[in-house]
Amino acid sequence: MPAMLDVPAHLLPLQSRLADAAAAVHLRLARELASDIPAVNRLCRHLERYHGKMLRPALVFLCGWAAAAPEAPAGPPPEADLPIADPHLGLATVCEMIHVATLVHDDVLDDADTRRGGVTVNALRGNEAAVILGDFLFSAAYRLCSSLGDPDAAVAIAQCGMTLCAGELLQLDHRLDYSIPEDTYFGIVERKTASLIATACRLGARASGAPAAVQDALHRFGLRLGVAFQIQDDLLDLTGLQSVVGKPMGKDVEKGKLTLPLIHHLAAAQPERRARTLRLIDDMTPQPPQAPLPTQAHADAPPHLDALRAAMRQTDSIAHARAVAADLVERAKADLAALPDNAPRRLLAVMADAVITRAV
Amino acid sequence: MPAMLDVPAHLLPLQSRLADAAAAVHLRLARELASDIPAVNRLCRHLERYHGKMLRPALVFLCGWAAAAPEAPAGPPPEADLPIADPHLGLATVCEMIHVATLVHDDVLDDADTRRGGVTVNALRGNEAAVILGDFLFSAAYRLCSSLGDPDAAVAIAQCGMTLCAGELLQLDHRLDYSIPEDTYFGIVERKTASLIATACRLGARASGAPAAVQDALHRFGLRLGVAFQIQDDLLDLTGLQSVVGKPMGKDVEKGKLTLPLIHHLAAAQPERRARTLRLIDDMTPQPPQAPLPTQAHADAPPHLDALRAAMRQTDSIAHARAVAADLVERAKADLAALPDNAPRRLLAVMADAVITRAV
Repeated sequence: MPAMLDVPAHLLPLQSRLADAAAAVHLRLARELASDIPAVNRLCRHLERYHGKMLRPALVFLCGWAAAAPEAPAGPPPEADLPIADPHLGLATVCEMIHVATLVHDDVLDDADTRRGGVTVNALRGNEAAVILGDFLFSAAYRLCSSLGDPDAAVAIAQCGMTLCAGELLQLDHRLDYSIPEDTYFGIVERKTASLIATACRLGARASGAPAAVQDALHRFGLRLGVAFQIQDDLLDLTGLQSVVGKPMGKDVEKGKLTLPLIHHLAAAQPERRARTLRLIDDMTPQPPQAPLPTQAHADAPPHLDALRAAMRQTDSIAHARAVAADLVERAKADLAALPDNAPRRLLAVMADAVITRAV
Repeated sequence: MPAMLDVPAHLLPLQSRLADAAAAVHLRLARELASDIPAVNRLCRHLERYHGKMLRPALVFLCGWAAAAPEAPAGPPPEADLPIADPHLGLATVCEMIHVATLVHDDVLDDADTRRGGVTVNALRGNEAAVILGDFLFSAAYRLCSSLGDPDAAVAIAQCGMTLCAGELLQLDHRLDYSIPEDTYFGIVERKTASLIATACRLGARASGAPAAVQDALHRFGLRLGVAFQIQDDLLDLTGLQSVVGKPMGKDVEKGKLTLPLIHHLAAAQPERRARTLRLIDDMTPQPPQAPLPTQAHADAPPHLDALRAAMRQTDSIAHARAVAADLVERAKADLAALPDNAPRRLLAVMADAVITRAV
């Protein structure tokens, strides 16, 4: 994420420091996963392509740095104020491990062949190896966070792991259930996507000794940012370009996942339009037992997806979802007022904006 | 396990206390897994049938009680010496949760329909729900052990989780590789089966304040017991009765899993006999992509399995595996000398014997 940001000049040294932090997380991750069994190491090497924007590690460091640094809106942050060390380094690595573990398992569950333009572990090495690799990552994450000297932080991480799963199960329970209220959607997304982002923010500040009120504010910041992030993912699945996003479009609809634009469209559409959209979705959703997913031979915009996009335009559902995400980002930025006004806080605000302007 | 033991009269009160402890673990487990999401609670109710012998919780309590109680070979243990409380109760619950999580994922990976005579979560609710439920259980286990006030014990549990996975991955790496030495087999089994049993023993003693030497001895006890346990599982898969074991026989061969009797047979058989056995195994092993597994319509002894049993008799491979397991149990019982001679230690020895006499 930070590498792609269009940041003001005075934040460039901070952005560069964040790139160093991401590199340190990569190294720590490799060290934590290293095994005496070559087969395990071979499998773990496939994980390189699962790291994307490193959003969660960046949030741990930035929230930690922002909470620890003095008020200094214009000054360049001295490096001594931007430590890349435990507990922040450990926590950042833990959050990234848990994130990657969920991606590895998600790809198994979604029967996904590609991620970030590369082949998934399940496609390359089979579902068995991928499920066990995900379990290995979860265990490695919990081992690391239990060794960082803050049992309450370890409890928070494990609680977050439970919340993630509860969100996934709630989503599964509502699969193909196209009449859920938006609140149910937010309940799913806060759990499955936003909870880990919020935990990264909270624990980053906590590790810098921030008071509870600041931790709580950054938790709220992360929750709002996380929901906005998921809405943007929903939008990219409908409106993005496969060649940019690196995976086939329309996957959410195929898997029966409820996305905000779709929920809004079905609630807002006239009965006849609604019925036509439901037939369209039905055509796009393979019935279990699943046939090979049709997207794999698709170009950027399969015909059903084009029709779905046209339907959504009639109810302004894409615009609605964009507006909800933009409002969440504004409220998230307001949460940052709990921090001293300094360079890390300003970069957090820039990152918040980028969550909904990204194309990938 | 304890409920099925044929124990001497003076150990009966202890066995009954252990049944109380198992009931307390059930209650604690339900409390730890309770969610604000009904879909999660509905799914967790399926786990009831995954608890079998509760071997790992029993080992936490017995090792804890044995390490804490005085030398008292004949006396009935006073209840005050047999507490059912944290940290032992928590640790016992953690070990059981991790065990059940691995069973839930194993059933997905093995495409298993039945466990302990009941329907598996994956068969009942689908692979997606089962994978996420396993992740939920892992996270719940780590949350609980992070809250017990001993971060080093939490690290040991998470390390054990990694070891379990490494063992599974090593096994997968050697799938259908029928010429591994017995040492490789032991390396797999110590990790995938024995490590959690050994960790249960060590942490039970540790939670009672046992010195490091006693913890180490009980870890060795658990490792040996665990390997013997797996060998007995291997034997039951070949020689057991489906109606007693509660799942189809010959599954290990079908899944390409290396078992001790088979490894011994292939190493000991003359070339022609070896070639015939390999053809037999090949016939029993569905080629990926997997066809529906043939066992599901089978009676207790499918014809191929009968032929395999007959082949093994020619090389005394069943007897060999039994002898290895019996030797491990004897050495495990010798490890118990690190404990004071009291009732819990004596029940541990009875349990060790039962590991290789059980029919289920």
